[in-house]
Amino acid sequence: MRETAILLISCPDRKGILAKVTGFIAENGGNILHADQHIDFQKEIFFMRIEWDLSSFKIPKEKIAGSFEPIAKEFAMNYQLHFSSKVQNVAIFVSKYDHCLHDLLYRFKAGELKGNLKLVISNHPDLKELVETYGVPFYHFPKTKETKLEVEEKEIELLKKEKIDLIILARYMQILSDNFVNQFRNRIINIHHSFLPAFVGAKPYHRAYERGVKIIGATSHYVTEELDQGPIIEQDVVRVSHRDTLEDMIRKGRDLEKIVLARAVRWHLENKILVYDNKTVIFD
Amino acid sequence: MRETAILLISCPDRKGILAKVTGFIAENGGNILHADQHIDFQKEIFFMRIEWDLSSFKIPKEKIAGSFEPIAKEFAMNYQLHFSSKVQNVAIFVSKYDHCLHDLLYRFKAGELKGNLKLVISNHPDLKELVETYGVPFYHFPKTKETKLEVEEKEIELLKKEKIDLIILARYMQILSDNFVNQFRNRIINIHHSFLPAFVGAKPYHRAYERGVKIIGATSHYVTEELDQGPIIEQDVVRVSHRDTLEDMIRKGRDLEKIVLARAVRWHLENKILVYDNKTVIFD
Amino acid sequence: MRETAILLISCPDRKGILAKVTGFIAENGGNILHADQHIDFQKEIFFMRIEWDLSSFKIPKEKIAGSFEPIAKEFAMNYQLHFSSKVQNVAIFVSKYDHCLHDLLYRFKAGELKGNLKLVISNHPDLKELVETYGVPFYHFPKTKETKLEVEEKEIELLKKEKIDLIILARYMQILSDNFVNQFRNRIINIHHSFLPAFVGAKPYHRAYERGVKIIGATSHYVTEELDQGPIIEQDVVRVSHRDTLEDMIRKGRDLEKIVLARAVRWHLENKILVYDNKTVIFD
Amino acid sequence: MRETAILLISCPDRKGILAKVTGFIAENGGNILHADQHIDFQKEIFFMRIEWDLSSFKIPKEKIAGSFEPIAKEFAMNYQLHFSSKVQNVAIFVSKYDHCLHDLLYRFKAGELKGNLKLVISNHPDLKELVETYGVPFYHFPKTKETKLEVEEKEIELLKKEKIDLIILARYMQILSDNFVNQFRNRIINIHHSFLPAFVGAKPYHRAYERGVKIIGATSHYVTEELDQGPIIEQDVVRVSHRDTLEDMIRKGRDLEKIVLARAVRWHLENKILVYDNKTVIFD
Repeated sequence: MRETAILLISCPDRKGILAKVTGFIAENGGNILHADQHIDFQKEIFFMRIEWDLSSFKIPKEKIAGSFEPIAKEFAMNYQLHFSSKVQNVAIFVSKYDHCLHDLLYRFKAGELKGNLKLVISNHPDLKELVETYGVPFYHFPKTKETKLEVEEKEIELLKKEKIDLIILARYMQILSDNFVNQFRNRIINIHHSFLPAFVGAKPYHRAYERGVKIIGATSHYVTEELDQGPIIEQDVVRVSHRDTLEDMIRKGRDLEKIVLARAVRWHLENKILVYDNKTVIFD
Repeated sequence: MRETAILLISCPDRKGILAKVTGFIAENGGNILHADQHIDFQKEIFFMRIEWDLSSFKIPKEKIAGSFEPIAKEFAMNYQLHFSSKVQNVAIFVSKYDHCLHDLLYRFKAGELKGNLKLVISNHPDLKELVETYGVPFYHFPKTKETKLEVEEKEIELLKKEKIDLIILARYMQILSDNFVNQFRNRIINIHHSFLPAFVGAKPYHRAYERGVKIIGATSHYVTEELDQGPIIEQDVVRVSHRDTLEDMIRKGRDLEKIVLARAVRWHLENKILVYDNKTVIFD
Repeated sequence: MRETAILLISCPDRKGILAKVTGFIAENGGNILHADQHIDFQKEIFFMRIEWDLSSFKIPKEKIAGSFEPIAKEFAMNYQLHFSSKVQNVAIFVSKYDHCLHDLLYRFKAGELKGNLKLVISNHPDLKELVETYGVPFYHFPKTKETKLEVEEKEIELLKKEKIDLIILARYMQILSDNFVNQFRNRIINIHHSFLPAFVGAKPYHRAYERGVKIIGATSHYVTEELDQGPIIEQDVVRVSHRDTLEDMIRKGRDLEKIVLARAVRWHLENKILVYDNKTVIFD
Repeated sequence: MRETAILLISCPDRKGILAKVTGFIAENGGNILHADQHIDFQKEIFFMRIEWDLSSFKIPKEKIAGSFEPIAKEFAMNYQLHFSSKVQNVAIFVSKYDHCLHDLLYRFKAGELKGNLKLVISNHPDLKELVETYGVPFYHFPKTKETKLEVEEKEIELLKKEKIDLIILARYMQILSDNFVNQFRNRIINIHHSFLPAFVGAKPYHRAYERGVKIIGATSHYVTEELDQGPIIEQDVVRVSHRDTLEDMIRKGRDLEKIVLARAVRWHLENKILVYDNKTVIFD
């Protein structure tokens, strides 16, 4: 695998951005592998993901950011610079449901998801054995209403110590505090078992069943302070009918949850997501 | 086409219902073509749609209801008896959007939807020419907040005079009064341009765009007193991305609306829908 | 869980079948939980799946078949009688790909698939450890062109000894002999990684990529003597674009394969599939 | 609507293409609205669609091609230059089925498809009235095996006279000669009523029904000399079951055909399709 650099850019839309950025790469001998841009004409914002081969790039890795800085300033860019050689550190949070966890453990092990799965945290001890079978450390952090903030501090300490880049809530049945969310802005991915914004909150399958919908869904999103209101990354659906009991809906939903969560995690780990205005641009 | 009879039944679940009903048909020489039953185990309700050939059935059509009555009483059934020879009379309500109207006009004309499309009612004059091209009478009933109830009375009068069985709201931009809805209980089908219960009410595409969803939908449902809360008949979805502008979403949505509405109308006209508890059982 | 009996019936279509079968159950005190019938009007064949509660049924389990025999004769029925208390014995065949295996191991363990997973057979040793982690015996049967028939005899011997009811080919990269297939007629389920009948045979993803299709699929089917020509049980698809490399298609396909295979296995284990004329009727 | 220019480019992949093309536009004062590129790494081909606002572009429209020529030469590009102000002339070919025709007539009239629908050609007179209702000239060209080539010459003459840019085969039940196809290379779009490459040729629904598939599809593609083998533009599918008769499949298929054909036509008219190697790149 050749090493690549990835720039994720957003800035006010103006003439010449694309020419300037691609010119910067070309003049320094970079071979562009992927370039995807998007303009939100309503808000006049320019978005871009550009990835280039570093093998013949004249600027050394550690100096790329500095060299790019004048362009970024000129166009008032928000930008992130990533390298394909940097593998992100990942933590999974679970409670008792194991289907998403099991699915993620397999995908990380099989190399389908490129990340260092460093640890799993749970408020219950139940899934310890499963996690350890995969050689991943399992941490049990029980929580009560009273201890929640205090326990979160310990979790945060552990996450920082392990340099965790991405947190996956794989059907974690606890709501994180604003403080927690703030420290991992756009780096916590949750799977909600409904087609958001339908059925925000608890027991979405029960409410879908009661409402008599003909299609159910799942939604992966970044976690924000407001419950189930963060930027949506991916959604998918499956058809149900009057023949489906609540249990059937939960069973069908599990397959959705696994796939919709895994897609979001993959895009995040490959630096393909830009967040703005509580929405996502997915450069897939 | 052979003539058939159709029984739609719902009643408390008990032993022997199916044997009793099928026995009644068999003993009288009926050949069952379709039989579909469903039990809601949570609420212990039995549902059934059974259709049989009348060609060798010993009981004359006009006496079938009377003959079946003792069984209906025994099991405390709600039931409807329909004959395939009875073609329902249909009215379409529209405002200015013409895509669903155009689609329905074609489907009725092509015989895909089996119904007598007797008339189209609109609160605007714009679609008069299109409707009349298909040889269907067009009625213009302008409405204001002040005249709404009064105008509705005239509409109801016309609908009754024309013996309308089914009313289709093909993107009709007016909310019907409770009185109107009550007179056509489970006989008014609306198309809502969102994946209900997401985006109830006005401008669902705008709100879907704002929320950044990755899939949009359309929902056909029976109209009840509460806006967009009636029993859902059918739903379908289509994928969108950050590349889709609001206009793209509206365009993609139009195709959904046409199909989701047409499916609901077809099932209704073929007596395949049972409503209970604000849900539908579709015997497709 | 209450114990139930399930009758799967196919016979020439005639008047009175449904009344006779439901009458038989009702007269003997059975409470029908599910009844689903289907008539192929082109071929004039009647199909039925009927399931009833045995708790108050007057005929003891072991005598039901005998009591039903006169009805079966009268209508020239093919029928199977199953009991929900009988859990089927299952064997999985794999080669080196582990995604379907991993998925099935989880579903059996989690109780989503109701069967006794008795053993896994492979022509390679690679997946031994994974299988044994789940406490399932793993058998390595290497095969060459020369030894194939001989090795198959040993496999059949083992399968008979373990009273295997269902064989799942979870991306097993060997073609079974006619002799093998004959001994497990309609009891071997394969997953083919294409939307059959497109791309029969080897390397379907490669050929789909070459052809430039916009949607790829997976198909689960019963194995017959002719490669990829057996009765189709389930299919599903996912969208691809020019952006997807062959590797992307293979990755997307894996998720399809898992789901499409698991659905087929579930329906089979719940006695919901009737095969006729190289097609399936799925009483879902 | 501002006027835009669109460049569709394919060439061997090399460093600096993107910088050169975007530099050309930026240096001349063009504001890039859309830029989408794709690299086929297997074949090392670079593809691009770039669209820019002409309002402040310094090079006059008629001189853009000439000014761009040196860049095209340098990189050995195949390219097309389009202007949004140029509306393509369209002809539809039909036989007796009217659903796709009806759908297209509406979409052109409603402005959803941006093209001048100049004429409809048919080998049958049946749809004359429908076409003329929309104010579109209808030409009846009956064909027999013997007269086919001769009649085609007259059709080609008419198409050239009317400066037709795009031909839509809206369920046209005749196979065009190689000569005809050659004169409108990548400018004839056909709708095939199956999920290609499954069920190439005649009666695909009948064969899908016989095969017992669980999903049916439709495919729009450019017409080449080989039947149903041209570059696929779009595909979509719908689920069927044993409950669906052949007639149900044909009915469900009609809705697919309409949508899949309309999407292809829209992309073509908006210059969003690049053909290479019997595949399409869709810059949507």
